[in-house]
Parts: sequence; structure tokens; C-alpha cells
Amino acid sequence: MADEQFYMQQALQEARKAAEAGEVPVGAVVVCRDRIIARAHNLTETLNDVTAHAEMQAITAAANALGGKYLTDCTLYVTVEPCVMCAGAIAWSQMGKLVFGAVDEKRGYRRYAPQALHPKTEVVTGVKAEECAQLMKDFFKKKR
Amino acid sequence: MADEQFYMQQALQEARKAAEAGEVPVGAVVVCRDRIIARAHNLTETLNDVTAHAEMQAITAAANALGGKYLTDCTLYVTVEPCVMCAGAIAWSQMGKLVFGAVDEKRGYRRYAPQALHPKTEVVTGVKAEECAQLMKDFFKKKR
Repeated sequence: MADEQFYMQQALQEARKAAEAGEVPVGAVVVCRDRIIARAHNLTETLNDVTAHAEMQAITAAANALGGKYLTDCTLYVTVEPCVMCAGAIAWSQMGKLVFGAVDEKRGYRRYAPQALHPKTEVVTGVKAEECAQLMKDFFKKKR
Repeated sequence: MADEQFYMQQALQEARKAAEAGEVPVGAVVVCRDRIIARAHNLTETLNDVTAHAEMQAITAAANALGGKYLTDCTLYVTVEPCVMCAGAIAWSQMGKLVFGAVDEKRGYRRYAPQALHPKTEVVTGVKAEECAQLMKDFFKKKR
């Protein structure tokens, strides 16, 4: 539990970098055997690319770090519930565990594709949920 | 209709490149106002990256070619029904039209997330379906 708080804090730091860059503030880290092997934040505006979500980049970077494309021994921490695209990527990677902070009722994978993840992927929700959600709320309030 | 056949033939050429490289043979092209603006094939093994599906790369390349991340005036041709991840990316890109060849009963988005696409995206299926499916069958037969 203390670990989950710590790693989500790291994902939150990534999310804040996204906010500072004018990006929807979502951050992610991938942890393998108590080490952070990838950090990423949303870059869709900067890269002009809808596929550049934090999770997608974190998965690519983690596979690169490990030299293998399956992440069965890894945990992905992400500040907001992944979308359908990212859930699909998490499934293909055979991610061991997914921990997310805030739920996303509107765009989260659980609304559109509740069976999208690999059946063996353990899911933990609600870690630092309020802090993760507050970052999103602050961002969209400023946008209006 | 003749156009659809032509562009799917181009996607099939990409799929054959994938097969030659030992990749699951899926190819894609993005067409905007009668011009092919992106071509891609599956590179998950070569890049060691589960996110490197043909469609994902084609979407990234098309946005790059257009200088904008929304592909509302574009059509994506892909030899096989997209997976959940790719359907999510197609949705985020607001792709105008999706044309695919062979269905994928097992991994296709329609099984897990039939509502994943943007509601405005037109979908056409079955273009050169047999040829697209045969490439996949031949590939997996060799693998066994």
C-alpha cells in the first residue's frame, strides 16, 4: 500500500509536467521489481498525435528498457482510468498489474470495453484518486 | 467501389511486407482526398513493441503528413479488422471512414468494444476479405 502511494505520486509528477505543457494532465510510470523502468505523460498536443497517451508511451518505453515486449512482471501506475486504446495496449503487453487513480466515467475503458484487459491483469483503482481527479478538474476549468 | 479495391490492394502490399519480415501480416493505408498520405505494416516484432500495429503507425504518420491530429476527411484501409487498441485510436483520430478486409472474430474490436469507434465514422467491411484472410492463414500455418 505504501508502495502504491509512492509510485502513484511519481505518476502524478508526470501528470503535472503534462499540465505545465498544456496537455491533458495524465501521467504514468511502469514498475518492474521495485524499480521504475519507464515514466511518461500525455503528449498528444505536443506531438500532434492522438496515440501519444501517457500509457502508450510508458508501455513502449518499458518494453524497450526490458528488451522484451511482454510486461507480465510489471505494474503500470496511471493517474486516470485508461481509455479503450490504452486498455487494448495494456492487454497486448500482458501487463501484470494496473493501478489507476481517478475513474473516467466518460472515456474510461470500463464503460466501452470492460473485458478489454488480459484476464490475468490485476486491477487496483482509487489510489490517490482525489489528487489525480483534482489535476484534471483544474486543467479543464482553466481551459474554459 | 473500384477505389476501395485499389486502396485495399495497397494495404495488402503493406501486409505482404510484414509477412516477409516475419510479422503478422496486417497492412494499412490512409487516404485523404484521393491521395495516400500514409502507409504502414505491423512491426511489433521488429520494434519489440505491442503498440506498433499497422493502424497505429498509419494514424501517427497521417497526422504528421496533414499537420493536424484529426483525420475527419480521411479513410483508413486495413487488411484485417482492427483490435480494441486500434479501434480506440481510430476513435480519437475522428477518422471519417474505416474500410477493412478480413474479420477477426477473436481479437477484433467488434467482439469486445462494438461502440469503440467515433459515432460519425463510416465502416465498410469485407473488401478483398478472402485475400486478406488468406495472407493471415498462410502466415500462421507456416508458424506451426
